[in-house]
Amino acid sequence: MTKFGVHDTPMQELFGEAAFAAFDDAGVGPDEVEALYFGNAMGGQTENVTHLGPQVATHVGLAGKPVQRYEDACATSANAFKNAVEAVESGRHDVVLAGGVERCTPETGLDTDAMTRIFASASHRQYEQPTGLTFPAVFALLTKRHMHEHGTTEEQLAHVAVKNHGHGSLNPKAHFGKETTVEEALDGPVVADPFRLMDCCPFSDGASAVVVVSDDLADSFDAPVDVTGVGHATDVVPLADKDTPHVTQAARDAATTAYDQAAVTADEVDFAEVHDCFTGAEVLASEALGLVEDGQGGIAAAEGRTRRDGEMPINASGGLKAKGHPIGATGTAQIVELTKQLRGTAGDHQLSGVECGVAHNLGGDAATTVVSVMEGRA
Amino acid sequence: MTKFGVHDTPMQELFGEAAFAAFDDAGVGPDEVEALYFGNAMGGQTENVTHLGPQVATHVGLAGKPVQRYEDACATSANAFKNAVEAVESGRHDVVLAGGVERCTPETGLDTDAMTRIFASASHRQYEQPTGLTFPAVFALLTKRHMHEHGTTEEQLAHVAVKNHGHGSLNPKAHFGKETTVEEALDGPVVADPFRLMDCCPFSDGASAVVVVSDDLADSFDAPVDVTGVGHATDVVPLADKDTPHVTQAARDAATTAYDQAAVTADEVDFAEVHDCFTGAEVLASEALGLVEDGQGGIAAAEGRTRRDGEMPINASGGLKAKGHPIGATGTAQIVELTKQLRGTAGDHQLSGVECGVAHNLGGDAATTVVSVMEGRA
Repeated sequence: MTKFGVHDTPMQELFGEAAFAAFDDAGVGPDEVEALYFGNAMGGQTENVTHLGPQVATHVGLAGKPVQRYEDACATSANAFKNAVEAVESGRHDVVLAGGVERCTPETGLDTDAMTRIFASASHRQYEQPTGLTFPAVFALLTKRHMHEHGTTEEQLAHVAVKNHGHGSLNPKAHFGKETTVEEALDGPVVADPFRLMDCCPFSDGASAVVVVSDDLADSFDAPVDVTGVGHATDVVPLADKDTPHVTQAARDAATTAYDQAAVTADEVDFAEVHDCFTGAEVLASEALGLVEDGQGGIAAAEGRTRRDGEMPINASGGLKAKGHPIGATGTAQIVELTKQLRGTAGDHQLSGVECGVAHNLGGDAATTVVSVMEGRA
Repeated sequence: MTKFGVHDTPMQELFGEAAFAAFDDAGVGPDEVEALYFGNAMGGQTENVTHLGPQVATHVGLAGKPVQRYEDACATSANAFKNAVEAVESGRHDVVLAGGVERCTPETGLDTDAMTRIFASASHRQYEQPTGLTFPAVFALLTKRHMHEHGTTEEQLAHVAVKNHGHGSLNPKAHFGKETTVEEALDGPVVADPFRLMDCCPFSDGASAVVVVSDDLADSFDAPVDVTGVGHATDVVPLADKDTPHVTQAARDAATTAYDQAAVTADEVDFAEVHDCFTGAEVLASEALGLVEDGQGGIAAAEGRTRRDGEMPINASGGLKAKGHPIGATGTAQIVELTKQLRGTAGDHQLSGVECGVAHNLGGDAATTVVSVMEGRA
């Protein structure tokens, strides 16, 4: 993955930086890669770029090969990854590249108002956009319901921000490198009640990519890790039609599928990268994945149980909150992180003794969720 | 498929019209459909709608199921279809829905200038868009080269328009229902030399969808047809980097793959639906697919060999030229057409005795091409 942050390079070059790193890491060249599963969420709206697949394929030496672009809001590249894994598992391909890229910062020429409107395109066009609902408000609604049901507090949410900024300060690829405090978080300006500034992830530029190879070939590569399960589910939209929005049912359904495929239970998971676009989203995700009990997500964060030195480290990379959130690159960046942690090559933010990790990437109001289980090579 | 033309309904409802028709045709309900492979090319730009997958899934009763959105410019839903076919062939799923939707007419609130700029997003952002290159000009360049190499004439191109408008006049789902003449076509205003108005397909609204089932289950459905090959290839971008642009190499590569999978040769193909976004594009496609000899595409059209009563009927539906071109719906609409022709249920534009058909759907400057072979059920 590239450093997440602010980039002034065209998207195909930014993606190339990640793709070439993935090629180098895997010891393959483009001639050996049979197809590209590519994610980009908003290039049409931000830079009037669609049909970006062949453009990035040409840049990374894959012109001619099958390339398809995926867009499922913030779950864009997790879906590209899922389809890549399925293509390899089925024997359709032996070696493929999956990844994504996004540019969301003012380097695109768009200010925060314009970008916020573009992000809101992932909400319901007829029922939500006209009300002015933007994504801080979407996740504020989910979180408010969780607070109502379980007594989750703003201070507990602040602990998520403090944790993830602390983790991000150890990750040189992170958009934000500085720590924060509960006091600073609670003192920030309100964005959408109960979220203050430090509860919200940034708009980032960045790219990520992974080489996915067949089980038969894996041992001929250096330091392979296993993808043992990938679950993908959706949920009803709009938000108002969800019976229990704070439950994020798609995450539960996707996790069930992924755990079943991997033949693991949540108890066997050692660490997770979850989609903390807002602090509240991490609380919901940690419960939906079964990593903490329902209602305990905020408490677990406040008690340090989800810190990198806790019993269930969540977002050791810094998460979206501190590592950053270049929409179409976020899903496969989680896969990069899981790979490095399982290999023991995550550097300063390496966790100790981890053998099974989970990635959770959602889109929209959590109506798309992809959950992946990865393990050390058996 | 819906009628192609002008629709003032939201995209999920327009897609629903096609999806419900597909369910009815197949005799399945949403409970039996395991996943949705969904195409939409430009909703983000036209109506600020992304993450449309769960929105259409909810509308057609598929909330909860895995849904992924594809975008590969005008080849959007052919790629959705390809991935659906591969998922079923691999045993991942037994029954899935594939389809797409688009709204491009002034019903979106956008005029032709705005829409032309949005379409141009499928060209190269850095090298082509700044020059003012729009898609009529892209295909004009390809066609000019063909004229230079092979002596193709404007009159031959006009014959493609006359043929397809004639075919479209027999198709009640077509955007345009009226015939034209060579004289009228040659008398039209120049859009991008050598193309005049009648050389260009319209912007249309519409949707299309097909139910794809496993080979094992197919015989339990009424009137199944076989998908025997799907090839997908890309080409370098920008256009200026193609050595022989009029050859449309991706189409040749995709056709080779599809024919190999189907174990057929071009000689065994009885009819084709090709991507005639411009008359010249049909000429290039007919050659790339091997349906006519290289250099003979224009001559074949002028001689009536590609008319519905000719030796190699092309675009019996009217093609993009007359049936219309709702971008993200075009690829699977070709699959709908092949299905009906193979079943013998195409109505007034039914071809006689056809057993093997080919669909050719391209994106951008032909840098993405998907070719599908379908045959009567063995």
